[in-house]
Amino acid sequence: MIKITLPDGAIREYEQGISAMDVAKSISEGLARKILAADVNGEVWDASRSIHSDVSLKLLTWDDAAGKSTFWHSSAHLMAEAVEEAFPGVKFWVGPAIEKGFYYDMDLGDRKITEEDLARLEKKMNELARQQNPFVRKEIPKSEAVSFFTDKGDEYKLDLLSGLTDGEITFYSQGTFTDLCRGPHLPHTGFIKAIKLTSIAGAYWKGDEKNKQLTRIYGVTFPNQKELDEYLAMLEEAKRRDHRKLGKELGIYTMNDDVGPGLILWMPNGTVIIEELEKLAKESEKAAGYKRVVSPHIAKENLYITSGHLPYYADSMFPPMEMDGERYYLRAMNCPHHHKIFDAEQKSYRDLPYRIAEYGTCYRYEQSGELFGLMRVRCLHMNDAHIYCSKDQFAQEFKAVNDLYLKYFKIFGIDKYVMRLSLHDPAKLGQKYVNEPELWLETEELVRKVLIETGVPFIEVKGEGAFYGPKIDVQIWSAIGREFTLATNQVDFAQPRSFKLSFTNQNNEPEIPLIIHRAPLGTHERFIGFLLEHYAGKFPVWLAPLQVKILPISDKFLDYANTILQTLKNADIRAEVDDRNEKIGKKIRDTELARVPYMLVLGEKEMNEGMASVRRQGKGDLGSRNVGEFVSELRTEINERRAE
Amino acid sequence: MIKITLPDGAIREYEQGISAMDVAKSISEGLARKILAADVNGEVWDASRSIHSDVSLKLLTWDDAAGKSTFWHSSAHLMAEAVEEAFPGVKFWVGPAIEKGFYYDMDLGDRKITEEDLARLEKKMNELARQQNPFVRKEIPKSEAVSFFTDKGDEYKLDLLSGLTDGEITFYSQGTFTDLCRGPHLPHTGFIKAIKLTSIAGAYWKGDEKNKQLTRIYGVTFPNQKELDEYLAMLEEAKRRDHRKLGKELGIYTMNDDVGPGLILWMPNGTVIIEELEKLAKESEKAAGYKRVVSPHIAKENLYITSGHLPYYADSMFPPMEMDGERYYLRAMNCPHHHKIFDAEQKSYRDLPYRIAEYGTCYRYEQSGELFGLMRVRCLHMNDAHIYCSKDQFAQEFKAVNDLYLKYFKIFGIDKYVMRLSLHDPAKLGQKYVNEPELWLETEELVRKVLIETGVPFIEVKGEGAFYGPKIDVQIWSAIGREFTLATNQVDFAQPRSFKLSFTNQNNEPEIPLIIHRAPLGTHERFIGFLLEHYAGKFPVWLAPLQVKILPISDKFLDYANTILQTLKNADIRAEVDDRNEKIGKKIRDTELARVPYMLVLGEKEMNEGMASVRRQGKGDLGSRNVGEFVSELRTEINERRAE
Repeated sequence: MIKITLPDGAIREYEQGISAMDVAKSISEGLARKILAADVNGEVWDASRSIHSDVSLKLLTWDDAAGKSTFWHSSAHLMAEAVEEAFPGVKFWVGPAIEKGFYYDMDLGDRKITEEDLARLEKKMNELARQQNPFVRKEIPKSEAVSFFTDKGDEYKLDLLSGLTDGEITFYSQGTFTDLCRGPHLPHTGFIKAIKLTSIAGAYWKGDEKNKQLTRIYGVTFPNQKELDEYLAMLEEAKRRDHRKLGKELGIYTMNDDVGPGLILWMPNGTVIIEELEKLAKESEKAAGYKRVVSPHIAKENLYITSGHLPYYADSMFPPMEMDGERYYLRAMNCPHHHKIFDAEQKSYRDLPYRIAEYGTCYRYEQSGELFGLMRVRCLHMNDAHIYCSKDQFAQEFKAVNDLYLKYFKIFGIDKYVMRLSLHDPAKLGQKYVNEPELWLETEELVRKVLIETGVPFIEVKGEGAFYGPKIDVQIWSAIGREFTLATNQVDFAQPRSFKLSFTNQNNEPEIPLIIHRAPLGTHERFIGFLLEHYAGKFPVWLAPLQVKILPISDKFLDYANTILQTLKNADIRAEVDDRNEKIGKKIRDTELARVPYMLVLGEKEMNEGMASVRRQGKGDLGSRNVGEFVSELRTEINERRAE
Repeated sequence: MIKITLPDGAIREYEQGISAMDVAKSISEGLARKILAADVNGEVWDASRSIHSDVSLKLLTWDDAAGKSTFWHSSAHLMAEAVEEAFPGVKFWVGPAIEKGFYYDMDLGDRKITEEDLARLEKKMNELARQQNPFVRKEIPKSEAVSFFTDKGDEYKLDLLSGLTDGEITFYSQGTFTDLCRGPHLPHTGFIKAIKLTSIAGAYWKGDEKNKQLTRIYGVTFPNQKELDEYLAMLEEAKRRDHRKLGKELGIYTMNDDVGPGLILWMPNGTVIIEELEKLAKESEKAAGYKRVVSPHIAKENLYITSGHLPYYADSMFPPMEMDGERYYLRAMNCPHHHKIFDAEQKSYRDLPYRIAEYGTCYRYEQSGELFGLMRVRCLHMNDAHIYCSKDQFAQEFKAVNDLYLKYFKIFGIDKYVMRLSLHDPAKLGQKYVNEPELWLETEELVRKVLIETGVPFIEVKGEGAFYGPKIDVQIWSAIGREFTLATNQVDFAQPRSFKLSFTNQNNEPEIPLIIHRAPLGTHERFIGFLLEHYAGKFPVWLAPLQVKILPISDKFLDYANTILQTLKNADIRAEVDDRNEKIGKKIRDTELARVPYMLVLGEKEMNEGMASVRRQGKGDLGSRNVGEFVSELRTEINERRAE
């Protein structure tokens, strides 16, 4: 008998050789139908693989990231089976699960795959799925594996095999298809109930443009048709809400070839949003005891050598400028400048926590092919700050940062979010991670404790920390369910040492502070890109570039319109009069299209009674209102930053 | 007889050969005593030089820039005479008048000049001045001039002579000293009544460090002792108010070797001032109908070729970065980016004037030896904006900009200012100036008219315009009478053409706009540097980094102090509690030194009565006040941006 420890701490005894699926069945048949894979001692296994010793076991379903990725990886194999049936002689390279779905890269020889082929392949995949063919794992000697793919004439898999060690090689087969694969996989193909092959692309072998171009087919699958339908509808909606399309239509931003790719020119409407976001950040940070600083966007090479960003991060930085015999770099991050400000005056424990904030401009080199609207740019404005504190103060400071996130989520109506706590990998201390094993464990535990106490949803990921300490990446979902990485929040015990930062503690001794790097609103670029999709361009009034449009029915009411304009301006409300010689119907349509939240329609009756006929964007007529009352209510709506 | 036209238009007849001094005497002896030189047909002449034809004449006194510069140039000759007497065999290079005073560069051989020598030289100069030796002008053939300096063994003057044309060479002599000199000079040395030799420096011959180092003596002179005393007192006061000293003491800014010279790190206190200035600018600009934009600080080379800044301005720009086979430059000015924003959407006459503002960051290469505190830096934050308007709109827009200047002068208590209207030089059209003679004259006249109508003091300077149009440089004087160039205000008819900017006019035809470049608050760097001196670090409350310091007499009143702190914070007043365990005397002294405008001293009596004992920085005790009343009055003082 072996002992199996479940996530709730319960220990159950089973026969040696039992599988996770058997364990699930022993609990309930309903549960078993949902099991896609299993976490066995921290490693993801096939649910059907035999267990031979005492282990910790977590059953993985569609709700687990590893469950989903197993599902999609198996779907890639299913697609490969269908492709091999339709295109005999096809050779496969790799077919991983990705963030949303999967792809497989393949060499089709002279043949070309078309959109019509995709429909045929989907049909075949559905057929094969219904056969509920089991995914069978087989450990195989290297020589046998080599001879299998030599027979098949597949030089790509032979290339993969050349990098693998004998004794660690496994094959997976389902139906007529066999692949070299580490796994894990689903119990059988029948779990895959809804299939969509989304696109075809070219991809150089090993990502090197000197190599042959392979064909890549992307797809996504789900455990039921409803989820697929919802996903496809979401993609449609995302296209409609594309921030590049809305950004242009609403005059938010532009780019220009003479300025350069990935360099955003913020138009007046976009700048209003930037200023409202900065106002929110400044207010919140002031209330939380931050001070503000302004620092230059360049520095000498030496600063980035001290910080550890050079030479390791050089590829992501802009090339240097040679001046007075020195190399200057545009900064890719604000921290080193802030450390110098911390260090400019002697600090004592009375000055800590020392919190300095700046909407800092950073420059990052991204390949031009990687640039994408506001999402991937080369110049970014970051809601940055650094908190220098003692170890005792850390938990409270970290919690306060967390609270700031929660405050912002509420304001922006972000209902779904997850904090990814990225930890170090003890095996890579001294290489990828600063070699301070105790500090790693200590700070990781401090962060974990805060997350648990705050009750925010979080997951832990080993081996993804920053080089100087554990970090939290904040994942958020837009109103239509698309996932974005908003911001990052990092603990740093390395830079305070390399910059020789210190403060005099209560015992009058020098002590090294901890640093928290935080940017809850991320960058203007990414966050406004997110907001454009999230709100479909219909910003809440406090953020709307133009808040009220005044629409006189004819020139006769222009004076009245201008009086109301002045009233609105006096209340610091962004308003304009549509004084064009157009029919009121057209004026309303144009204003609706421009996503202006409120319209005031003015005619004879309104003028005589000192009223305005109020329309809300997307909602139509709200009836006739006293102008003074309307303004005062609107002012409250803006002051409270109401979502609607 | 010849006709002499005076500045008021009056024409007087005189004998041929009369001098400007004679004309002055014919008006009044009192006037004659003040005449230092004369403007004859736009050229500055000796007041004693004979006039042989009809001319326009302006008599120049100490109040005229050209009068002062003649005075100082003659003082340099006077100093040279004294030096030659004290150091026989000295050889002279050049001795010009400068912004404030004069210098002379000389080769003293192996001899070294000391501070003590300066006192001796001053004494000698005073002696020679009292002799009222006339400055005598003599036209001299080149061969004679060469033989004079060959005999004297002065290779420096011979070098100067080699560049001059026979027939245009003049000598000036006074007392025992004769110099190669274009002039003009004072009638005699007796005009120089107060003398101070201020410093000794080394200066490479022709400014080239490969050449011999000469000795430079700086001096300043005045027509009376009182002005000299005032000037020296002003220098003393300027030293006390040195923005570099105050900037450090008050935690305004810092610099760091690892970041680089001329790159300012704004500390929290400096950033408060920056934010208050930006708030003022944004408020004023919003009220004046500006929109705001945000643009990246770099662009491709091509943008600056279009703008005309490259290659002509390349020396003042940072070196390029090579990226993706293109050269990128840090921008030295914001205009090209703004033009691209103007051009991003089609404009009609309804969109004009289109005013876009940005506190834009620019980078300028200054020689490291030229860098000076906040006054000469490499990274600057400019109160920039560009107004795109039709020719019809120009005068009104230009006037509105002027009004903004006047508004700011009032807020900052700048009582003395002059606008320097810099015009083109018709002789340099097509070289230094865009070859549009009519547009030059037209826009110059438009600007002149606005200046006259507004009634601001202004002077005109030929040949100092920007290459794209006339400009106004704004000169201001600090509270202690030092002159600063604050800002510039330019008309541009060239860039709209090179950027192919246009709008659709009322006749539905494309038309090229005019552009006004303006930056009334200059740059944060220079303006805050100016303000530090102007206020001696004692900022008015609205600008003060910390507005109120609460000083409890002992720990017993700490709770009361914190209640008041909260009241102040709720009123958005920057306040802190001094909770150190120190005597109240020390707390007050430290707060005075930190130039915090208000102190609230709290003891038993204050706590029991809900009062606070109010002190004003530099003014002492203002008596006991009700806290609520104090806060509300202070709020008004801040809101109105009162000077005191």
